[in-house]
Amino acid sequence: MADYRSKFLNVYSILKSELLEDPAFEWTDASRKWVDRMLDYNVPGGKLNRGLSVIDSYKFLKEGQELTENEIFLACALGWCIEWLQAYFLVLDDIMDNSHTRRGQPCWYRLPKVGMIAVNDGVLLRNHIPRILKKHFREKPYYVDLLDLFNEVEFQTASGQMIDLITTIEGEKDLSKYSLAIHRRIVQYKTAYYSFYLPVACALLMSGENLDNHIEVKNVLVEMGTYFQVQDDYLDCFGAPEKIGKIGTDIEDFKCSWLVVKALELANEEQKKTLFENYGKPDPANVAIVKALYNELNLEGVYLDYEEKVSKKLTATIEAQPSKAVQALLKSFLAKIYKRQK
Amino acid sequence: MADYRSKFLNVYSILKSELLEDPAFEWTDASRKWVDRMLDYNVPGGKLNRGLSVIDSYKFLKEGQELTENEIFLACALGWCIEWLQAYFLVLDDIMDNSHTRRGQPCWYRLPKVGMIAVNDGVLLRNHIPRILKKHFREKPYYVDLLDLFNEVEFQTASGQMIDLITTIEGEKDLSKYSLAIHRRIVQYKTAYYSFYLPVACALLMSGENLDNHIEVKNVLVEMGTYFQVQDDYLDCFGAPEKIGKIGTDIEDFKCSWLVVKALELANEEQKKTLFENYGKPDPANVAIVKALYNELNLEGVYLDYEEKVSKKLTATIEAQPSKAVQALLKSFLAKIYKRQK
Repeated sequence: MADYRSKFLNVYSILKSELLEDPAFEWTDASRKWVDRMLDYNVPGGKLNRGLSVIDSYKFLKEGQELTENEIFLACALGWCIEWLQAYFLVLDDIMDNSHTRRGQPCWYRLPKVGMIAVNDGVLLRNHIPRILKKHFREKPYYVDLLDLFNEVEFQTASGQMIDLITTIEGEKDLSKYSLAIHRRIVQYKTAYYSFYLPVACALLMSGENLDNHIEVKNVLVEMGTYFQVQDDYLDCFGAPEKIGKIGTDIEDFKCSWLVVKALELANEEQKKTLFENYGKPDPANVAIVKALYNELNLEGVYLDYEEKVSKKLTATIEAQPSKAVQALLKSFLAKIYKRQK
Repeated sequence: MADYRSKFLNVYSILKSELLEDPAFEWTDASRKWVDRMLDYNVPGGKLNRGLSVIDSYKFLKEGQELTENEIFLACALGWCIEWLQAYFLVLDDIMDNSHTRRGQPCWYRLPKVGMIAVNDGVLLRNHIPRILKKHFREKPYYVDLLDLFNEVEFQTASGQMIDLITTIEGEKDLSKYSLAIHRRIVQYKTAYYSFYLPVACALLMSGENLDNHIEVKNVLVEMGTYFQVQDDYLDCFGAPEKIGKIGTDIEDFKCSWLVVKALELANEEQKKTLFENYGKPDPANVAIVKALYNELNLEGVYLDYEEKVSKKLTATIEAQPSKAVQALLKSFLAKIYKRQK
């Protein structure tokens, strides 16, 4: 895939140049410079897994056939649309979560020159997606399906973010409101659809497929995405900050994390009391007590058990898929996240 | 139009109920209640001019033909999409501008239970538009054009908001950065497209028209929208507070208003110095000095000249339109704002 990464990054530059010359707006030097800087700061600095996986998926669906330069470009463009979508969510989420760092640098809204303008920058990032789609896909038979797909997945992600935010308010009053059921719903909607289903759905549309015929593929990917977010929750506390590129603050922030939900499930009354008294407080002393309790409950071991179980289940479901190409695609997705540490 | 207002409000309730049962998301009681309250607080409380003008425009285009119940419903639904779009912008703009009140009540983000969750609520409002469009227009031949239209206008509005935000930063350092050219660009993109062009464009699409054939209509409406915003800037300072329903604070807030831009254009060196020293300060003494300067420069007279000139020019362009229905439509738009005092 190394070859595609450099092609992929090259397409970023092309898309950015096109956006900075978008004829639907009369640019000023200052506004062009602002967007240029904002894009470079927020869009390409991640792991690019979601974006690259569109090309990867499309290759699987073409079953070894050589991709044309145009196909590669289009798959890259769709991949970047997902990266743009993610950048939009992250810029706004960081504001809502009052975060400090992202991808090893200060959050965009924390820059002194930016501040609350970051809200509009998030909106701009979101608006770039239909601009890219219109420029490169307007004449494709699947154009309207692409628009519908991005709209639906964005709606699901924003809805997941909403229950995350609301649940956190309720949890702050009463920690026992956090449960595995609500956690599943949050991560499924907030993360799984856009991170796992969307790249494959883009590749399916490019291959001329009707998404209504691939509900099982969607279900597997959404379950994989849920597993991915559980990993994220785990790494927020147990991962190495230099690997994950941030310092986790889920405990301080009263997050409805898989860890606290599991802890609530496993704790005795006394441990629950400790959790209630120390969760969601900014003081490092409180955080340390929560972490000690997580260790006492052996949450690392509980997590490793979960990881084994879910990956076995996913493998079985994947192997029941009728298409070998789809099987290979889904297996490669699973392999990429299984036992990940960043 | 009184008749349509009650029908229009009725359609709001229907659309809201549909959104609260959207099958693309697994609702919880808490999330349904949240969105219900958030919509009632932010969507229907304005003057509804933009939304109602879709029905109005569509009637003109049907040249007196009776509208069917279904046509009325669809025109109302599109009208509400514009009101939803406006609600989305206002919720986010109030956060960025650190505003206190909106439509006679505290801004949504100022409610203690809401705070920064309002950012995601803005995103949800925006996401409701494609949900409404998909539910009611998916099978229409102009569905993809509706999606493209809303996407383009949203992009233009967000771009206008961006230059407004950037210009204010630069203007605060150096007032001379404010100019008529930049003012025109801000108001054209931030206000005119979504407030004036979008309702008519929706009605044109519903009538089966191709928007590419109506570039002149777009230009007239965008110019009318620019004129409307110049009026807003004028009324902020010279309007009667009891008529416009608020006490203007553009001078205190360092706004790139048409008035300050005109003042900069007309002032001699000494007057410019006065402006530089007193603009954008909260003290009423400074504000009074700026207002005295505006009077010295006869900005009321300058504004009245502008109003006469622009309305004459608009009337001439409108009368050059080939379609009588379009002429009548555009004239009714102009009549609604010409010499308005609120």
